[in-house]
Amino acid sequence: MRMRLLFFLTALAVSITIACGPAHVDTTASDSPKPAASVILLVGDGMGPSVIGLAKDYARVIEDRDLWMEKAISEGSLALVQVPALGTLVTDSAAAATAMATGQRTVNGTISLSADGEPLTTILELAREDSRGTGLVTTTRLTHATPAAFAAHVAHRDSENEIAKQMLASGADVMLGGGLRHWIPQDMTASDFAGYEGKSKRKDEENLVEQARGAGYTFVTNKDELAATAGADKLLGLFSHSHLPYVLDRRPNDGTNTPSLVEMTKAALDILSKNENGFFLLIEGGRIDHAAHANDAASMISDMLEFDEAVGAAMTFAKKRGSTTVYITADHVTSGPFLAARYSDETGGTVYPREPDLRKIAEQDASFEAILTALSTNPTPARLKELVSKHTGIELTDADVAFVLEGEPLSPFHVIHPRYRQFGYPALALGRVLGLQYNFTFAAGEHVGEPVLLIGYGPNAPLAHGYIENTDIFKIMNTASGL
Amino acid sequence: MRMRLLFFLTALAVSITIACGPAHVDTTASDSPKPAASVILLVGDGMGPSVIGLAKDYARVIEDRDLWMEKAISEGSLALVQVPALGTLVTDSAAAATAMATGQRTVNGTISLSADGEPLTTILELAREDSRGTGLVTTTRLTHATPAAFAAHVAHRDSENEIAKQMLASGADVMLGGGLRHWIPQDMTASDFAGYEGKSKRKDEENLVEQARGAGYTFVTNKDELAATAGADKLLGLFSHSHLPYVLDRRPNDGTNTPSLVEMTKAALDILSKNENGFFLLIEGGRIDHAAHANDAASMISDMLEFDEAVGAAMTFAKKRGSTTVYITADHVTSGPFLAARYSDETGGTVYPREPDLRKIAEQDASFEAILTALSTNPTPARLKELVSKHTGIELTDADVAFVLEGEPLSPFHVIHPRYRQFGYPALALGRVLGLQYNFTFAAGEHVGEPVLLIGYGPNAPLAHGYIENTDIFKIMNTASGL
Repeated sequence: MRMRLLFFLTALAVSITIACGPAHVDTTASDSPKPAASVILLVGDGMGPSVIGLAKDYARVIEDRDLWMEKAISEGSLALVQVPALGTLVTDSAAAATAMATGQRTVNGTISLSADGEPLTTILELAREDSRGTGLVTTTRLTHATPAAFAAHVAHRDSENEIAKQMLASGADVMLGGGLRHWIPQDMTASDFAGYEGKSKRKDEENLVEQARGAGYTFVTNKDELAATAGADKLLGLFSHSHLPYVLDRRPNDGTNTPSLVEMTKAALDILSKNENGFFLLIEGGRIDHAAHANDAASMISDMLEFDEAVGAAMTFAKKRGSTTVYITADHVTSGPFLAARYSDETGGTVYPREPDLRKIAEQDASFEAILTALSTNPTPARLKELVSKHTGIELTDADVAFVLEGEPLSPFHVIHPRYRQFGYPALALGRVLGLQYNFTFAAGEHVGEPVLLIGYGPNAPLAHGYIENTDIFKIMNTASGL
Repeated sequence: MRMRLLFFLTALAVSITIACGPAHVDTTASDSPKPAASVILLVGDGMGPSVIGLAKDYARVIEDRDLWMEKAISEGSLALVQVPALGTLVTDSAAAATAMATGQRTVNGTISLSADGEPLTTILELAREDSRGTGLVTTTRLTHATPAAFAAHVAHRDSENEIAKQMLASGADVMLGGGLRHWIPQDMTASDFAGYEGKSKRKDEENLVEQARGAGYTFVTNKDELAATAGADKLLGLFSHSHLPYVLDRRPNDGTNTPSLVEMTKAALDILSKNENGFFLLIEGGRIDHAAHANDAASMISDMLEFDEAVGAAMTFAKKRGSTTVYITADHVTSGPFLAARYSDETGGTVYPREPDLRKIAEQDASFEAILTALSTNPTPARLKELVSKHTGIELTDADVAFVLEGEPLSPFHVIHPRYRQFGYPALALGRVLGLQYNFTFAAGEHVGEPVLLIGYGPNAPLAHGYIENTDIFKIMNTASGL
């Protein structure tokens, strides 16, 4: 009976909140003027339900904390989201981000253009037209598919030089991520602008960094510079030549001086919250997907936990400010990653995953990308054993090593797309041999068909309700923004 | 703005419904006396989020209908459910059903006993004590783990002879499923009781069918007999020697005369709704899990669609009667089944699943169990090709056949538990070769770690809220029942 009472009180509170419309949730702020309705959209790229469940266990066992997302679901609301693309039952990130950004379906690979090439208006553009603040934050290259679809319109996601140009032209107030290589002239290098190395990918003389400065942007390239930007009106931060390093590969004093997703989130909110008309902000945990493509459970889960902290920063901001709704979702599910039971003929029983499996995963202190990059200079069995032992504590057998260095893909579903081969050619084989130690398996190396969750937190949380399509997320955000 | 208005009206309606407490949802019934609060729990065994998403696409493309579950989510509410067992992060059906039936955790394999062997009181027992109606309906053997945990207490799920005895002693008003072999004396056969064959599995002379008749049960063994039971007070129906055939293997006039899950659901509701004190009814779609263990996508999806129709029957009943809340959930996720994209070096691009893949799945007209049972009498390559061609329209290559008949498991996660080997020894290999035609893959052959959904529909739907544990489902049902 107590539970029912609690339910009625909660329902009463919810209905009162609802009746008050999109206003304060924080009564302590009731003396100040009511801030305009704002929306923060957090996208965990590739973050399927299994990743959320895994993160919940991992946060409890390894970090002795509850997931912020758990709090968001329990205090907010939950919807199930079908994520097709135009003509296919499984989407890529470009079509999925287009659906969320514009409310329209398009074909895989396309960035906010219709199937016949017409530009589709994005929520970021609508917010700009309404003189609101706008921002894009990601751990991938800023020009990667998810942020791109909010501020650019191109026929293929790989046209990142063009995307950079269009992003700058979009006038978004805050843009933070990686991928300086698409913003600098072809004859310059990253080190001309930042403390890291890398060649330009442009085929022209456009210096988008200079153009950004000319347009009033403060330009930063590392964590320390980012920490000093609260006074900026417009901010462009490019913290890596390509994607930001995985969380596992960032170390204090390692010279990369990369900000965390949480630091980027807070910096963006500092600037955007100054706009009296409200704002729209996208925050992407972009490399959860990359780690899942590479079947690298430890990198996936540590990037996921960082994403959850960014969720926490957004929730804390929203609660304090009021009138800000936080939506948390994923664009699709990648690779089908699972702690998994298996039957063992040796023991005659089923081996079920337990907490020590999470502790083994937590011992891995470098991504497959880092391990296999280190291996690439000297790809011998001894070197692979040495690297894996050093970074995971696991001693590979000769058979393991042969499988990683010479093995065939497990199945055609485990052939890696060239886009992800940079993360290590034999990554999926390494994922399999370590997976046997972790009791962890992946169904594939590409995207799989599964609904994702949409979590709502804040005054317009209940709009996240039902079994919806990803295009509905655009409508929900528009309604919550009062656009 | 229209969406926001719709939202406010919905919220208003919800809060009015809530303020009225657990009463009528159907205003047309308002002249009749208010029925007592009842709960129908529908469990899709192994029905993960990916299976629901697949079913939604399949229902639209193949059956030109919406999923009942979609309506339940959109008109009701949604929670995310973590499903561990005691000491493990992944559960089996026994521990999961114990959690839902009793609100307590136990170790895998155990049926409603605590870790130190104490019986745990089940919601069915509480409902019986309160003079309510109680029922168990499943497509597996009635004595299988999920229904067992609501009406029996044994140290291991495999003790199905003892479970049958305890189930009968539980006095549940309606018990419908398969598994006659555990209810008849050791020296009798199924054909002494029913129109199907099979030996007793008992090691004693107990004739539980006779005992049931003596205790006032009407005993039925086929669809026609079931159709004539509306006047019965107590009903025991055992429609197969072991599990009910998969939906794919049931054909009109095939002699099995097996009722569908929908027919069993309606028969159970006809009887239970006569109890003025309300009722508790469990309905299990039990073989979604078996098909997933066997990596048999077509059998999984057709059993899933039948389960969805049982959901529809429960929803229709609840809407008409009022005061009845329907909860829909799963006990765990099995095998990680997905429509999946894959990169093809041949075409130089990613192959994404499309609607024709669902049409190919829909062409399969027999389960792997049936195909491999037919093969077992003459396990030659030619016979395998012939059977697969006949039942799927797909022509296997010689390499496919060699893999199915002689191949090694894909990985240790793809070794089949002896409990599931009856469904075809080379089933997982067949699943892989057909999966390449269907663009469908499975992560494993056992249970995987992923949260499941809890859907609420009816007056106490909103109790299904937040990120909960499976043990909370017991509490929610108790509250909704007013127990």
